Amino acid sequence: MLVDGVNYHSIWRDSATNSICIVDQRWLPHEFVTCPLTSSNDAMIAIRDMWVRGAPLIGVTAAYGMAIAMAEDPSDRNLIEAGELLNGARPTAVNLSWAVSKIQAGLKLVDKNKRANTAMRLADLMAREDVQTNLAIGKHGAEIIKNISHKKADNEPVRILTHCNAGWLATVDRGTATAPMYEAHEQGIQIEVWVDETRPRNQGAALTSWELMNNNIPHTLIVDNAGGHLMQKGFVDICIVGSDRTTATGDVCNKIGTYLKALAAKDNGVPFYAALPTSTIDPLLKDGLSEIPIENRPEKEVTHIQGVNEDNEIVTVHLCSKNVRALNPAFDVTPKHLVTGLITEQGVIIH
Amino acid sequence: MLVDGVNYHSIWRDSATNSICIVDQRWLPHEFVTCPLTSSNDAMIAIRDMWVRGAPLIGVTAAYGMAIAMAEDPSDRNLIEAGELLNGARPTAVNLSWAVSKIQAGLKLVDKNKRANTAMRLADLMAREDVQTNLAIGKHGAEIIKNISHKKADNEPVRILTHCNAGWLATVDRGTATAPMYEAHEQGIQIEVWVDETRPRNQGAALTSWELMNNNIPHTLIVDNAGGHLMQKGFVDICIVGSDRTTATGDVCNKIGTYLKALAAKDNGVPFYAALPTSTIDPLLKDGLSEIPIENRPEKEVTHIQGVNEDNEIVTVHLCSKNVRALNPAFDVTPKHLVTGLITEQGVIIH
Repeated sequence: MLVDGVNYHSIWRDSATNSICIVDQRWLPHEFVTCPLTSSNDAMIAIRDMWVRGAPLIGVTAAYGMAIAMAEDPSDRNLIEAGELLNGARPTAVNLSWAVSKIQAGLKLVDKNKRANTAMRLADLMAREDVQTNLAIGKHGAEIIKNISHKKADNEPVRILTHCNAGWLATVDRGTATAPMYEAHEQGIQIEVWVDETRPRNQGAALTSWELMNNNIPHTLIVDNAGGHLMQKGFVDICIVGSDRTTATGDVCNKIGTYLKALAAKDNGVPFYAALPTSTIDPLLKDGLSEIPIENRPEKEVTHIQGVNEDNEIVTVHLCSKNVRALNPAFDVTPKHLVTGLITEQGVIIH
Repeated sequence: MLVDGVNYHSIWRDSATNSICIVDQRWLPHEFVTCPLTSSNDAMIAIRDMWVRGAPLIGVTAAYGMAIAMAEDPSDRNLIEAGELLNGARPTAVNLSWAVSKIQAGLKLVDKNKRANTAMRLADLMAREDVQTNLAIGKHGAEIIKNISHKKADNEPVRILTHCNAGWLATVDRGTATAPMYEAHEQGIQIEVWVDETRPRNQGAALTSWELMNNNIPHTLIVDNAGGHLMQKGFVDICIVGSDRTTATGDVCNKIGTYLKALAAKDNGVPFYAALPTSTIDPLLKDGLSEIPIENRPEKEVTHIQGVNEDNEIVTVHLCSKNVRALNPAFDVTPKHLVTGLITEQGVIIH
């Protein structure tokens, strides 16, 4: 997608130096920083310290990390150890271990001197497939948006509410929840996006609004508290969110707060969709609420926040009394009866 | 209530100097600042610039402001002009014009040389009545908490979720939503409070958690997104919020985001109460959603936030790209079918 008018992926192979480059997302939206991953340890740090985030992008970064590791040392031992290093970066990220296992399986029977090249090609393939998947999600989702648009007066935009960042920055390109927005916009359908700021990490305010701004999609930032009121007033035509993990029965585990928006959508007759690659559907899970463990993240994410001060310096400030304790559950589960449909690369699934 | 072990009201008459003093709430929780209101213009500024906030406290501050104005100039003309000055400070605050009118009506037939004293006594009375009202709300609310407590295992706390600050800082003392918590705590009932941070102005993080900490009430800060998940998991026994305006039919207009919590409470069988003085019930209103206008506040409250930096300085930081626009509706309406009951000074009203 566009950044200041230039096309970017969130991770790419630089053809001149053959190095893997990423957008270091820690400084967005205040600074746009790109940097090379020069070692497998770099890749681990980029995942662990959230220079990159978003399940699909974490997976692809780990795959490239394995490729870099094989250039460093293509031994069987390193094939295991590099996998452990990368898997340990964010233990709960399903796509991470999936990507590492996929590279390990693909290299097991490959000659050591060919492992680095093979791994790089496998990682490239994974990156390309991610983009193709998201483009397909976009096409299916844009159909839904188009149908809503047809019922509106001329040039009345379709108003879409989204939560967190399931945008191109969470994938290699296009995003999942944002893919239908980018596709609809390219098809000339008028849209306007309500962006939940998405506390505590503020991915909506920091990333989604920045993405949409750079790609000329009309949008307005709101606090997470506001969406219900906007739906009551008829100012939301459709909700589209991402999904970190989806049960076979259609429950959606996504960023904390998604459930509250789904409740409001149901209460106000607003269609509520999750956009996701079918790879996030876990065929063994039947009941998201009881079966999906929810990670509690550091309380500092609640008690502190990052922004820029008057001197344009990026600083972190403390929001409450220093003795106040916080709880920080990172995800919640939206039961299937609140979800209108799952927009996947294979089409829209309705449970 | 207690601040560092010392008992305070949010506004009081200093007996030594006979001046009206307030807690300047702009710097909480980082700094506890008190200051005198030395002129009617001071009182206007304190209301306008939110040194004081919360409907009951705004009303009492305006009443004292009128008393100060009468000491400055007890003329009929100033009785009107001071009222206009104070009413203009926050045009949408119902309690403000109510308090000003009450003082004006009480002084109309009073000799000019007695107006300052009479106004001061009327304002004192208003302040005392506020405290009495809140104590009564506390007693009725504590009964509900006690009943929940009786169904729990020994020493298992009753877990209460609250939104925004309907605390003692929003009133003269005790608060509305917090009154049952303080009362229950004093009665020896074990409670634990989930404090919604309440974006955008963060009154939960800045004020409610600070209040509860100073009064030794166990509490945990959460982002506004988290409450639904906690209710799904059975970690919330009751919600108690305030109300800025209540319809005769029982719809509750309160801080933005209240509606989302009420939806989650309903979905999970958690009792949901609003605690309020009967003076906030508007007997002419039947349908909160269509009849109560919702104020949109400055977008800067969404795009910026105040906290303390590493050097312990209070600073404001920008959270998103500088070009991003925001919408900032300040309240929402929770329809009566989501409200278990209204805890008032007269008892619990169930619609």
